[in-house]
Amino acid sequence: MKREEPLFDVGQLAHLEIYSPKIEESVAFFKEILGMTEVERKGKSVYMRAYEDHYHNTLVITDHHEAGLAHIGLRATSPNALERRVKELEEAGYGIGWIEGDVGHGPAYQFNSPDGHVMEVFWEVEYYEAPEEEKTHLLNRPQRRPNTGVPVRRLDHVNLLASNVRKNVEFLDDYLGFNVRERILNDENDDIAAWTSVTNLAHDIAIMGDALGEKGRLHHICYWYGYPQHLTDVADLLIERGFQIEAGPLKHGVSQASCLYVFEPGGNRVELFGDAGYLIFDPDWRTVEWKGEDVQTAIIWQGEELPADFFVYGTPVREKVEIAEQAPIQEETEEVRVQSVKEAKQEAETKA
Amino acid sequence: MKREEPLFDVGQLAHLEIYSPKIEESVAFFKEILGMTEVERKGKSVYMRAYEDHYHNTLVITDHHEAGLAHIGLRATSPNALERRVKELEEAGYGIGWIEGDVGHGPAYQFNSPDGHVMEVFWEVEYYEAPEEEKTHLLNRPQRRPNTGVPVRRLDHVNLLASNVRKNVEFLDDYLGFNVRERILNDENDDIAAWTSVTNLAHDIAIMGDALGEKGRLHHICYWYGYPQHLTDVADLLIERGFQIEAGPLKHGVSQASCLYVFEPGGNRVELFGDAGYLIFDPDWRTVEWKGEDVQTAIIWQGEELPADFFVYGTPVREKVEIAEQAPIQEETEEVRVQSVKEAKQEAETKA
Amino acid sequence: MKREEPLFDVGQLAHLEIYSPKIEESVAFFKEILGMTEVERKGKSVYMRAYEDHYHNTLVITDHHEAGLAHIGLRATSPNALERRVKELEEAGYGIGWIEGDVGHGPAYQFNSPDGHVMEVFWEVEYYEAPEEEKTHLLNRPQRRPNTGVPVRRLDHVNLLASNVRKNVEFLDDYLGFNVRERILNDENDDIAAWTSVTNLAHDIAIMGDALGEKGRLHHICYWYGYPQHLTDVADLLIERGFQIEAGPLKHGVSQASCLYVFEPGGNRVELFGDAGYLIFDPDWRTVEWKGEDVQTAIIWQGEELPADFFVYGTPVREKVEIAEQAPIQEETEEVRVQSVKEAKQEAETKA
Amino acid sequence: MKREEPLFDVGQLAHLEIYSPKIEESVAFFKEILGMTEVERKGKSVYMRAYEDHYHNTLVITDHHEAGLAHIGLRATSPNALERRVKELEEAGYGIGWIEGDVGHGPAYQFNSPDGHVMEVFWEVEYYEAPEEEKTHLLNRPQRRPNTGVPVRRLDHVNLLASNVRKNVEFLDDYLGFNVRERILNDENDDIAAWTSVTNLAHDIAIMGDALGEKGRLHHICYWYGYPQHLTDVADLLIERGFQIEAGPLKHGVSQASCLYVFEPGGNRVELFGDAGYLIFDPDWRTVEWKGEDVQTAIIWQGEELPADFFVYGTPVREKVEIAEQAPIQEETEEVRVQSVKEAKQEAETKA
Repeated sequence: MKREEPLFDVGQLAHLEIYSPKIEESVAFFKEILGMTEVERKGKSVYMRAYEDHYHNTLVITDHHEAGLAHIGLRATSPNALERRVKELEEAGYGIGWIEGDVGHGPAYQFNSPDGHVMEVFWEVEYYEAPEEEKTHLLNRPQRRPNTGVPVRRLDHVNLLASNVRKNVEFLDDYLGFNVRERILNDENDDIAAWTSVTNLAHDIAIMGDALGEKGRLHHICYWYGYPQHLTDVADLLIERGFQIEAGPLKHGVSQASCLYVFEPGGNRVELFGDAGYLIFDPDWRTVEWKGEDVQTAIIWQGEELPADFFVYGTPVREKVEIAEQAPIQEETEEVRVQSVKEAKQEAETKA
Repeated sequence: MKREEPLFDVGQLAHLEIYSPKIEESVAFFKEILGMTEVERKGKSVYMRAYEDHYHNTLVITDHHEAGLAHIGLRATSPNALERRVKELEEAGYGIGWIEGDVGHGPAYQFNSPDGHVMEVFWEVEYYEAPEEEKTHLLNRPQRRPNTGVPVRRLDHVNLLASNVRKNVEFLDDYLGFNVRERILNDENDDIAAWTSVTNLAHDIAIMGDALGEKGRLHHICYWYGYPQHLTDVADLLIERGFQIEAGPLKHGVSQASCLYVFEPGGNRVELFGDAGYLIFDPDWRTVEWKGEDVQTAIIWQGEELPADFFVYGTPVREKVEIAEQAPIQEETEEVRVQSVKEAKQEAETKA
Repeated sequence: MKREEPLFDVGQLAHLEIYSPKIEESVAFFKEILGMTEVERKGKSVYMRAYEDHYHNTLVITDHHEAGLAHIGLRATSPNALERRVKELEEAGYGIGWIEGDVGHGPAYQFNSPDGHVMEVFWEVEYYEAPEEEKTHLLNRPQRRPNTGVPVRRLDHVNLLASNVRKNVEFLDDYLGFNVRERILNDENDDIAAWTSVTNLAHDIAIMGDALGEKGRLHHICYWYGYPQHLTDVADLLIERGFQIEAGPLKHGVSQASCLYVFEPGGNRVELFGDAGYLIFDPDWRTVEWKGEDVQTAIIWQGEELPADFFVYGTPVREKVEIAEQAPIQEETEEVRVQSVKEAKQEAETKA
Repeated sequence: MKREEPLFDVGQLAHLEIYSPKIEESVAFFKEILGMTEVERKGKSVYMRAYEDHYHNTLVITDHHEAGLAHIGLRATSPNALERRVKELEEAGYGIGWIEGDVGHGPAYQFNSPDGHVMEVFWEVEYYEAPEEEKTHLLNRPQRRPNTGVPVRRLDHVNLLASNVRKNVEFLDDYLGFNVRERILNDENDDIAAWTSVTNLAHDIAIMGDALGEKGRLHHICYWYGYPQHLTDVADLLIERGFQIEAGPLKHGVSQASCLYVFEPGGNRVELFGDAGYLIFDPDWRTVEWKGEDVQTAIIWQGEELPADFFVYGTPVREKVEIAEQAPIQEETEEVRVQSVKEAKQEAETKA
């Protein structure tokens, strides 16, 4: 949507809730490898934070029979802004309704993306107050740097799979003010993928086409290091402890980010960002469009090609609908994943 | 000023114009050491850009009898936003008036800060169009990476000296929407220095108290690398070519930036940023306040103490007013600088 | 050979001479991208150096109808050591004979490896004396850091293809004192590749099996950065100027080096080293042996798999002997390379 | 001593034993901050290792009433080489005698440096065998990368204080084959400090003049990272946990190393190396000599000046002899240190 003035009502991606079928292993991964802190447990959920996250938590891991995205939390830029967003979302029929709040934030209005990804927007937050022994004299850092793993600094972004990229991107733009920073287009000029943000980052929320045609799946969540060396460091830890790095360290063209992809034990894909990429300050940014032979550059600027899985695998893990009905997702995510990807690729090849 | 909603009318620091009494040497410094491109010359000015700046230029160097800041260019977030800012500035009596535009941007409204720093705000810009041989397949990069020096990526921020920090900071906040991200306070809770931004950076414009009580001087301008290694690399070039590094590589507490300070041949202080520091996404950011024994941490987190000059020297170089009237600033900036700093320190000591 | 005491007669890899069918383009590559200095020209050769090489030159590029390795220069640890090596090589029938010297070094004794790679060993060297404007106050650096490209610091190693790895490695060990630091073995415990050194580096000379069964070819030469960031930096320059990066940045298991492979315009493969890898101080080092499923780790620790070409392509570019007789190598190296690799792979597949 | 051929009998600095008056705190520092492993305890000693050390241990921390260096362990290059060294040391009267061995190595011959630093040379070593869960597929790495602190990779060097630098350096050269790589000279061409090695490193053992005229003291021990980023990382940990960084991150001229100095809780100074500096392969290396105005460059190439303490403080902490006799060194190392340095400087100033 072309507005007369940019919409500034949503300020940031504030937190993510993911599902894990192996919650303790997932929590251990984020704590021991990525140096995150477990701040609280409530019900089936564990609330976690990176040491430079300013709010109480940015990642909620919830026990569930399969991996996936539970919801995305967005912070409005003011109480008025929140009110305006709720009104528009409600009128357009995307609304789910208000919740009283959750650990770390106040009342939130929940709604669906066109694809059914659950999102919420809120204003009130609880800032993290470090225990005395975790405080630091570096006053712009809410908690001292942890001593464990290669600690990530803060939540960066989330990447969603969608059955229809364009439709979901337009929703983010129209109703929430996300600007489309970059996009990959097919020969018909339809979106294969798009990167959107309300901040100066190249993306807070990215959307990629779901190769299986599924709705509401998660491609990956991303935490930030800011230094490329840390990708090498954490890769050592991951490889030597048997975690599966899917790709990287490498450097994307889109966003110019140096990064690495790994599967957390619950099966969700996690990206780690090794630098700041490039930042966008232009208030009238002209979307960068990648087409045809430029697409390869969009995906990889430096380093390895991405494996075929990267373009198929998401959570929850889904085989073709028919198969899924016959054989419900088993607990052994890893196995299923491999099988699913294999079949998805066979399908894709058959179609091609 | 506490507003009901944040003000989003100014989007970014878009360019800076500095004065140089040794213009060709200044231009050579930015080209050969910092890898910047000379895009155009007009009148007494040379227009330059870093390779990831998206507009036509971000640095104008203008021939002048002494170093200093000519003006600061700010981009509004929309034509309406521009109109609103102009109206308020005009009504408040800060306005200078419209100019038709300059190389790289359209009509701009000029105004004074309380201290008399000249600023302008505008909407229309010219995007840089690289010549064929400088184009890159990395489509979010407007120009391929240069082959010369250790090339900076983009303009980062400007740091001003002011006779009254609080007053100038409040002006930036009230009339332009700059948020105060961090501040150093003295025992009376008055600002010694403040860092403000309209972006997610910890600062687009910083203001420090002028130890000489002068008005309108420049402390430094800053370009961005994004990688700490480049500070080491450029330090090699600078040291071996006889440029004077004032301090660094070091890591500030404020902004968490790894940086280095050097004097360009015209006498202006230039900072180079080696990483992204930390970014601020919280729309309700609580200003980080450094006082008392924390101030040393604010200034230096890792590495060396800053030399006394750092807190005195600015451009234009100014001795005490009485002396300046008797002996106008000579062309030998360096000499004057040393002398000036010495006297300023003597004065400061006498006062203390 | 198991000696009672280690042999310390050869001290280092001192220089390399390579052939180029496009000499001016090759020289330009090493100067403009890798920041090397052209020190002298003589006959058909250009003598070049990296800025932290201490001798007059470390790379000689010689005009030739096809790419490849002309010779390897080794420095003895003393005049006596030189004498001892010459005597043994001569007696064993590997000797070619003495040359008077070359630009940058004195009398050298030339000899063949079992595969026919030409090597020489010498004692007298000429140290580089930088012109006044290239001198630096950093007295352990023979020349100030160049302002061009992403300058490499020094020669690191050479990697040879051989028709029989074991035989050539044993020669290096027995006659020159090269220690086998790491090796990749096939199921019959024969060497697929080996890394040898007389220094604390994991290798000064590596040898890999030639997939085409050819003798005396070059796999790659390597220059050293010492900082991983520089691989990212130089990759930008290479990609945006149309040079072909074969692989990387990546991190090998063998040597733990972060590196990148690129083809210089003459067709020779050049490796760039981004860190120090690991160093070996143990005088009784037990060769690290990679076999079976560990081989993949030996090749890649972090990052992408190497392309199939990597294990086939060498210089001079050689098709199967029969074909080569019918169609002599054309000047268009690149084309030939592609063709050659394709055929070699077909052959390999046919055999498999 | 100018030999006809270089002496290759000593291969490396293999381990260090230091004293600590706060042994558990010292051990905790090396484990929790530097990620080292405690391998064994025996008697009053704790045996530790970095994860890329190949032998059983490289650091022995022994309970003692004051900090300092207990002994330096050197590995010979062969049994014959060991025999030769012992013979010469014995004949020259430096010998102490054989010990049966210690945890991690076999029979060792102990001797004194002219200043009385205890050293030993040996041949037989025990290689580290990691427990199953600490093994890695990276076969040239003896133990997987630890998950704690910012783990150092291996022992790098030791720096001794000596009452007479030249005499001790000549001893290292004449009797052990250490090559003088760099030296700082005073106006009378006497050594203020010297850096010596038997490896390609710029130093395995450095010697600096003891400002107090004491004999046998330790300036610092050094472990190696190989990546500058890790200095920033560990500095965060150190600062936020209240350890005192004496200087750095900075870059020396001598050795070109990026480094940081910190006091371990026992009072010994520990250096951390952030890169490989430069390596020396020239078998006939001409000692780099720094004199007069170049000395400042030798000490600091990039970053801060070293504090005055750096040139005075060593362990064991020693006041002037007269004072020391009256008031024996107290357990509160830190206090004593501050006092001692203050007095030493007063003395130095009085002398000057």
